[in-house]
Amino acid sequence: VPQRDNVVTSSRTGVATVTAGSAVGIVGGGQLARMTLQAADALGLEVTVLAEHPTDSAAASAARLLIGTPTTPEAMIQLADQCGVVTFDHEQVDLGILEDLERRGHLVRPGSRTLQIAVDKAAMRQRFAEAGIAVPRFAPLGQGGTDSERALAGIATFADEHGWPVVLKAVRGGYDGKGVWPVADRRAAERVCRNAHQHGTALLVEEAVEITAELAVLVARRPDGRRVAWPVVRTVQQVGICREVLLPAGLPPDVESAATALALEVADEIDSVGVLAVELFWAGDRVLVNEVAARPHNSGHWTIDGATTSQFENHLRAVLDLPLGDPSATAAAVASVNVLGGPEGLDPRDLLAGALDVPGAHVHLYGKAARPGRKLGHVTVCGDDLDDVRGRAWDAAIALGTPAITTEGDQRS
Amino acid sequence: VPQRDNVVTSSRTGVATVTAGSAVGIVGGGQLARMTLQAADALGLEVTVLAEHPTDSAAASAARLLIGTPTTPEAMIQLADQCGVVTFDHEQVDLGILEDLERRGHLVRPGSRTLQIAVDKAAMRQRFAEAGIAVPRFAPLGQGGTDSERALAGIATFADEHGWPVVLKAVRGGYDGKGVWPVADRRAAERVCRNAHQHGTALLVEEAVEITAELAVLVARRPDGRRVAWPVVRTVQQVGICREVLLPAGLPPDVESAATALALEVADEIDSVGVLAVELFWAGDRVLVNEVAARPHNSGHWTIDGATTSQFENHLRAVLDLPLGDPSATAAAVASVNVLGGPEGLDPRDLLAGALDVPGAHVHLYGKAARPGRKLGHVTVCGDDLDDVRGRAWDAAIALGTPAITTEGDQRS
Repeated sequence: VPQRDNVVTSSRTGVATVTAGSAVGIVGGGQLARMTLQAADALGLEVTVLAEHPTDSAAASAARLLIGTPTTPEAMIQLADQCGVVTFDHEQVDLGILEDLERRGHLVRPGSRTLQIAVDKAAMRQRFAEAGIAVPRFAPLGQGGTDSERALAGIATFADEHGWPVVLKAVRGGYDGKGVWPVADRRAAERVCRNAHQHGTALLVEEAVEITAELAVLVARRPDGRRVAWPVVRTVQQVGICREVLLPAGLPPDVESAATALALEVADEIDSVGVLAVELFWAGDRVLVNEVAARPHNSGHWTIDGATTSQFENHLRAVLDLPLGDPSATAAAVASVNVLGGPEGLDPRDLLAGALDVPGAHVHLYGKAARPGRKLGHVTVCGDDLDDVRGRAWDAAIALGTPAITTEGDQRS
Repeated sequence: VPQRDNVVTSSRTGVATVTAGSAVGIVGGGQLARMTLQAADALGLEVTVLAEHPTDSAAASAARLLIGTPTTPEAMIQLADQCGVVTFDHEQVDLGILEDLERRGHLVRPGSRTLQIAVDKAAMRQRFAEAGIAVPRFAPLGQGGTDSERALAGIATFADEHGWPVVLKAVRGGYDGKGVWPVADRRAAERVCRNAHQHGTALLVEEAVEITAELAVLVARRPDGRRVAWPVVRTVQQVGICREVLLPAGLPPDVESAATALALEVADEIDSVGVLAVELFWAGDRVLVNEVAARPHNSGHWTIDGATTSQFENHLRAVLDLPLGDPSATAAAVASVNVLGGPEGLDPRDLLAGALDVPGAHVHLYGKAARPGRKLGHVTVCGDDLDDVRGRAWDAAIALGTPAITTEGDQRS
């Protein structure tokens, strides 16, 4: 019986022929790529994944796979040559390579100019502030961001004006709470600055916003600017990691409409194409843009089971310049709870029976090796009552080995 | 950049190691396997597909693929060796090989004893009639089914009792209207018998039921007999091919409950494991079991977008002996329309924009080469009103090149 050789090889001959003509190439092999593949497969679209490792979440389930590093030109050129449009699972990209691909006439969506802003928190804050988009009070620590002394001086000036505590953030590369340091005083700031200096990490400083709730709005946007927004959701973080996503967000109508308006404004401002996730702070009488991610996002996983069109399908539609699907929720209440690796390192795939026993639990597992605290999947439950669906989603996530949320509270801003 | 070799090779070394431990092996690479793969991927389950051709629907999107013929022991043994449980995309199997796998201790679900009935219409009718399950009046044409003269004599005897017209059916291998011949008189029967004789096709004869509507009920059943049934749907066939599937079926309550009760009875009677599709005739005051398929089925594609748990997910859960998911519809009205190849042979993937412009259209394409009349995909729309969702599903299917339903009506029983 002949068999597809599922082992990664260095042979290129013939293979390029098979994958040539993939509609979409995805940079990165994480769970976002994996769920995008699922949506693509339903639409009959062929997708090639560029993953670093054959064991990556999307690599293990992709029929068309390149193994390579997205910060090397060779890998990116090979992907672009095989695909009609290049898009992303993560932002760990080299903007110079993307600009080069664009100059060669490849479609890169979102484009390098959008990503330039999305990957640099200082540039993002600056750009939004200039455009009149509400953001937390902040100060870039300038080119001296990696110079411990100058950074500290900048922080002190900022704190003199706005008071302690403040929040320090790495300008690039932070995610899931990494690269975010709330500091109570100058001494704590010194420790962060020294450490950042050692790692060459540029910082910015911003006010410690007193958050009423964290929100997220996802926008899918086509190259010509047509766009749709999914309903506002409330996200619950702990130690910087998203634990649950809740709909409805339970907001006063003016907060809800402000959040949606801000997200659409941001999408237009940075000319996003594909899905843009806008994370917001609701802080008393203010709604502020916190971060953006120019790709599908954890705060939108609920849309697979709870919206007419999922974020993954609309991301594909948008980057292919196809009509966008209806983002409406299909249920009055939707809760998504992330499946995180527990301290015992149990594989949630071995615990499926318990989770599938929970009525209405939509279980999504990413095929990743189990490690404590690692995002291994999510569970979504849809229904009429938020308390009910939230309870069931937690029951299933805990059955899969997820540690229960502790009462320590959220350690970041 | 190393690249997964997506070309089928005859090398086995190393590959068996990679695919060893697939939870499920699927015999057949059609669209049912493809949609089962999508459900498996979401659950984090690894699946290996045994397809005849690398261009088959599921072969093109499977990360783990064997190329081989399911009627050869070598292919089936290799699949079974790599997977925890073997299941099916179609019934073109060799029962002897399956029995042999079972004897060797492999899990085959549904098992050979269930498939023996499902693949043989004469055995099926006989078994159901003996169990008191309502079926159309019929007569097996016995071992003489391939003997033209003896078959004709059997038909004449049957028609003497029940009148003309009658319906002749191939005992094995029919699908999508193939292998079903309504005949008005002895002369027409002669032609079918002669042709069947030439092809070695065994026949059965049955009454031409005056059908009020065709219905389908899908049942997912675990090895221990626990089972769930999806809501009854109405199916609309033309020239033997399913054109649309509609929910609600618009039935009197007693017809609806009779259909569900019959389907559950059938599932128990043949000890089905996995999804069993039961196609029924509603004929005036009778509800009759027409055919069964021991696998996911065209009449259940609506469940991907319109039910809490899809037929594909519950098929996987059932064959893995995991708890079954809720089969309830998530909308008051659901319509699925098949995308068939049009006379121009256009590829529906090139026509996506028009279909995605239809509000709420869930487009599913199978990645198959376009040929006139071939099932290339389906579109599902969910909503509150059946006329509305049916209209939109047709709009999208027609945008994808599907020929509109003609007024000639259905040419088969």
